[in-house]
Amino acid sequence: MLTINRLNQSEAKLIIDGAVTKAKEFGIPMCISVVDESGNLIAFERMDGGKIHSITLSQDKAFTAASARKGTHIFNQVCIPGHENNLFGIHTALGGRMCIVGGGLPIFYKNEVVGGIGVSSGSPEQDLGCAQAGVDTFSRISS
Amino acid sequence: MLTINRLNQSEAKLIIDGAVTKAKEFGIPMCISVVDESGNLIAFERMDGGKIHSITLSQDKAFTAASARKGTHIFNQVCIPGHENNLFGIHTALGGRMCIVGGGLPIFYKNEVVGGIGVSSGSPEQDLGCAQAGVDTFSRISS
Amino acid sequence: MLTINRLNQSEAKLIIDGAVTKAKEFGIPMCISVVDESGNLIAFERMDGGKIHSITLSQDKAFTAASARKGTHIFNQVCIPGHENNLFGIHTALGGRMCIVGGGLPIFYKNEVVGGIGVSSGSPEQDLGCAQAGVDTFSRISS
Amino acid sequence: MLTINRLNQSEAKLIIDGAVTKAKEFGIPMCISVVDESGNLIAFERMDGGKIHSITLSQDKAFTAASARKGTHIFNQVCIPGHENNLFGIHTALGGRMCIVGGGLPIFYKNEVVGGIGVSSGSPEQDLGCAQAGVDTFSRISS
Repeated sequence: MLTINRLNQSEAKLIIDGAVTKAKEFGIPMCISVVDESGNLIAFERMDGGKIHSITLSQDKAFTAASARKGTHIFNQVCIPGHENNLFGIHTALGGRMCIVGGGLPIFYKNEVVGGIGVSSGSPEQDLGCAQAGVDTFSRISS
Repeated sequence: MLTINRLNQSEAKLIIDGAVTKAKEFGIPMCISVVDESGNLIAFERMDGGKIHSITLSQDKAFTAASARKGTHIFNQVCIPGHENNLFGIHTALGGRMCIVGGGLPIFYKNEVVGGIGVSSGSPEQDLGCAQAGVDTFSRISS
Repeated sequence: MLTINRLNQSEAKLIIDGAVTKAKEFGIPMCISVVDESGNLIAFERMDGGKIHSITLSQDKAFTAASARKGTHIFNQVCIPGHENNLFGIHTALGGRMCIVGGGLPIFYKNEVVGGIGVSSGSPEQDLGCAQAGVDTFSRISS
Repeated sequence: MLTINRLNQSEAKLIIDGAVTKAKEFGIPMCISVVDESGNLIAFERMDGGKIHSITLSQDKAFTAASARKGTHIFNQVCIPGHENNLFGIHTALGGRMCIVGGGLPIFYKNEVVGGIGVSSGSPEQDLGCAQAGVDTFSRISS
């Protein structure tokens, strides 16, 4: 039997709150998804004005980050055509559910992934900034 | 009437065992899929800690390799935008089921494809190394 | 933080072995899937002669049972058109991934679902019989 | 290693010809698909005037019949809501690729399934009649 740590609902809400605070600083209404360590959605918020396509995109970013245990922007850096040993092509896997656009981050607890956050509606930098703010919030409450 | 050779279940298990042994050498828990010559799944194992997205990705690598009769990393080398006579775009075919990321290999028997193996959760080199270990295992038991 | 119990790979293999033994009693080669408590595939075996459509169907049965925490045949009993308060229509949810055909069972450990098994290729009774054999095997090894 | 018998292309063409002859008797232009024993398409013909939706439907009928090793109309008879041990719900499996409408038949050779035929554009009886004509053609050429 394996024993797995997983974000709970109240933690997920606080993580989203952290991302929302940063989104307000940017002045950009975002879609924010938090998934558990298995990639299943725990909480979602579309701030008033968040973009429609970002509903799915934020979920896919969170899923990808939690599953791959790395930021989605890291994938983007190694997803370049014509390099045999990089990951070009992974961005279309799983019917496109794999997302390599910046804005998804894994959430670690005691060196294990316990969930992921995905943010979408701004630029990849802004999305990543908000995702990082969510991760930072979790670091504060879990330490 | 055609007569087709196809991996059986016990061969599939041994192939997976070969890949698992290599994965343990790498210290990376992998998802490993073995399909038959028609691309249909015969056996699958997610080692404890194998990544969620690799469940599908390993199956798609095995499917692509068995169907195309070449390693998925070979596709990657010729999937480059702007080259009229190469294969750019094939990575999005079949809803993304075609996978050009390294880690999928066909399994040959008497110069015919009898199945395929797909490995995912490490780097493309590590995935390919484990897939090759599976192929090597089959070569030993079938010769 | 939640703490989750989850089947590991060696338990999944023993569960499949239990189902395979029963399938051999029936004389019917089966497809057998074991998923974790999040519905993600851990292990799969297509016995030689198992049906092609059962590859997906066994996974969907295991997914549905683990997620819903009940046998898929239970859903079937309450999936009847024209009864306002039953579940007719759930069988088409998730692109048809929800499966109400008998042969899927949740796997419990200390009153919590830790995974699911799905069996397909025989009649619903035979599929359910093999799934139950898998569950019984787990009960023996985990008590 | 398994040894599998599979329809070849010239057999598939003759099977389609048999179905086309019957369709002309009915005066109904049909879509006719022949798949191999793994459910993969070998040959397809849309007679002039065959219906658009029947392109996919004939393929799904052939797939279902070959995989399940029985006629699709047989499934229809046991796919009734509220009967615990029948197969209600299987018609929506595999994203609806499982097809229980009459007109799909397996093709046997020496007691093993070597392929399937699916016909669509008429009534289920007409579709089944054409599929049977295709099967009968194969029986004549293979005996």
